Amino acid sequence: MEVLAECRLTRARAGLLHTPHGSIATPVFMPVGTQATVKGLTQRDLAEDLGVPILLANTYHLYLRPGHELIRRMGGLHRFMSWPNAILTDSGGFQVFSLSGLRKITEDGVIFHSHLNGDLHTFTPQSTVEVQLAYGSDILMALDECPEFPVSHESARESMRRTLRWARQAHQYYIDRVSSEAPPAGGLFLIVQGSTYADLRRECAQALVELNADGYAIGGLSVGEPRPLSLNMVEAVEALLPREKPRYAMGVGMPAELAEYVARGVDMMDCVLPSRNARNGYLFTSEGRLIIKHARYKDDPRPVDERCECYTCRSYSRAYLRHLFLAGEMLYAILATRHNLRRYLDIMREIRHAILSDTFPEYLRSVRAMCADAG
Amino acid sequence: MEVLAECRLTRARAGLLHTPHGSIATPVFMPVGTQATVKGLTQRDLAEDLGVPILLANTYHLYLRPGHELIRRMGGLHRFMSWPNAILTDSGGFQVFSLSGLRKITEDGVIFHSHLNGDLHTFTPQSTVEVQLAYGSDILMALDECPEFPVSHESARESMRRTLRWARQAHQYYIDRVSSEAPPAGGLFLIVQGSTYADLRRECAQALVELNADGYAIGGLSVGEPRPLSLNMVEAVEALLPREKPRYAMGVGMPAELAEYVARGVDMMDCVLPSRNARNGYLFTSEGRLIIKHARYKDDPRPVDERCECYTCRSYSRAYLRHLFLAGEMLYAILATRHNLRRYLDIMREIRHAILSDTFPEYLRSVRAMCADAG
Repeated sequence: MEVLAECRLTRARAGLLHTPHGSIATPVFMPVGTQATVKGLTQRDLAEDLGVPILLANTYHLYLRPGHELIRRMGGLHRFMSWPNAILTDSGGFQVFSLSGLRKITEDGVIFHSHLNGDLHTFTPQSTVEVQLAYGSDILMALDECPEFPVSHESARESMRRTLRWARQAHQYYIDRVSSEAPPAGGLFLIVQGSTYADLRRECAQALVELNADGYAIGGLSVGEPRPLSLNMVEAVEALLPREKPRYAMGVGMPAELAEYVARGVDMMDCVLPSRNARNGYLFTSEGRLIIKHARYKDDPRPVDERCECYTCRSYSRAYLRHLFLAGEMLYAILATRHNLRRYLDIMREIRHAILSDTFPEYLRSVRAMCADAG
Repeated sequence: MEVLAECRLTRARAGLLHTPHGSIATPVFMPVGTQATVKGLTQRDLAEDLGVPILLANTYHLYLRPGHELIRRMGGLHRFMSWPNAILTDSGGFQVFSLSGLRKITEDGVIFHSHLNGDLHTFTPQSTVEVQLAYGSDILMALDECPEFPVSHESARESMRRTLRWARQAHQYYIDRVSSEAPPAGGLFLIVQGSTYADLRRECAQALVELNADGYAIGGLSVGEPRPLSLNMVEAVEALLPREKPRYAMGVGMPAELAEYVARGVDMMDCVLPSRNARNGYLFTSEGRLIIKHARYKDDPRPVDERCECYTCRSYSRAYLRHLFLAGEMLYAILATRHNLRRYLDIMREIRHAILSDTFPEYLRSVRAMCADAG
């Protein structure tokens, strides 16, 4: 990736990440399209209306349904879901560890039961790369093991070292497969694990950097650990990662945390919060969170966020959204998701603009002051 | 309404219906927006993408939630739901009789329990006009009684005559109220009832015509009677209705029936079928019905209807829609509803074009031939 600007005080940087489906302005937030759809939005809403340059889709979910071979036959995930921009697919590791009730980890990979019908499946470092190649993902992720929180140092080390061995295998498999492929594949990112232990995180990062991967992710965050610890884990490894490679903090974060991750050198993030919270009635605004079911919005003619320019805020009132929410209408989720995603994308644009105009430290201060005000 | 063309063989006509929110090309199909939203579509999708000139909303549902006084305070239904085109609200009668478990009909009106929380409410001919005036509807409907099917001739007559008395009261109340209103209201339509008895239907129509209403609806159709009977009931009364007034067949019909109603002099129709069937996996195409969950569509790269130009058909495959349907994804309902509504609107455009170009008899023959082929 091209680094275009770096903050004079923090580790924040703005750049351009080149993929087979377009160049992506970073830092970037990736909406989550678990089953090849961002819940409630069309691909046109996402690409044209919101200007989303890259989506995340879930390797695990799409592997189980409709299946990677079907997606391959349909011409890959972009064509299957009619998505013109870039796609990152995760490793499947996190879902195997969070959704599958029964699973067995071996040196070769992980054996698990489908959460849909109980069928037995195996993911190996090689097979998950193969699955993601079938998808035609722009960015693939290597299989990793996601330990729960809390976990002992010894277990975390054992797990991290297995993730490391898997990363080497995935990396080698990817290189062999891609060199034989006609169309240019994207890149394979490797994932730094090590739970909440800085020494393990560093050991993992150092070993992964030797593989000269296309990018590095920091995984195993937001699994229940205290929020400051998540940021500490990023701090622990970021300086070890090569400057010219993108860094991706997986599964984060809350709106006010986005700038904190960027301040620690993160270029890419993803999170279900904007879409999931939207559906549950929690709307993010430039003045904090708004819980739409509250009676005070019953006849409130104002938009969700008076400073927001999304379709929802330009066209509909809090009163109407509250009515739709209470009536259980699908349009509520459609409009709320659109707003919350726009809010995240706007924050990322503000952050990028601040870095490029050399005002990121001031921006970060204002975000922190607003958080302190909000208690 | 202006009648622009009449079929040389059938009773079909094409015209323009003028409302405070635009002139509507007839014959017209009105999508149903029960709770001030057409399930799964934004108002922009409806107005700009599909070109819907008039929506139907349910007096009963909106009266219970969020309430007509709230909608009045919010500036009326158009402003509340951000809808630029015309709105027709039904009388509430049908919902009282189909949704409310407990209800009592008196000479004055109907007392019923809310299906939401059991609260007791009363609808009278006057109150339902008042509720619809609060909504600011372009077209209001008078309170009617919807008898079940089958019902004895005696009960049907008693019920029809009550509907007639209610219609006179609603009509008088509307005239008194509108003459005192500053902004021009739309019109109040009266509803012909009489179950499946042609003599009662005629008696009802003749009496209603004397009131010189803004339009006439044929109600109580599609309540379980054999389909030919519904068409017979339209035939029984249509010639009695004034030529220059719009005629509205309530709650119909299947795609192949639309031309049949038009052939019998109907200008307006509404039905939940395109949207409800879409959600349930039934898609209407120019070649008949398509059940999206069928395994044969698993890897079918074709659009739902190769001759359709809707966003869904231009962008997505049957395979992708089937995946979304089986995965329970909201985007399935969004895309399917958009397609089915487009199909209905396309049929209405074909019908109108046929009438205006004097080819409606041939068009009707081709529709009938296709139905016969489909068995």
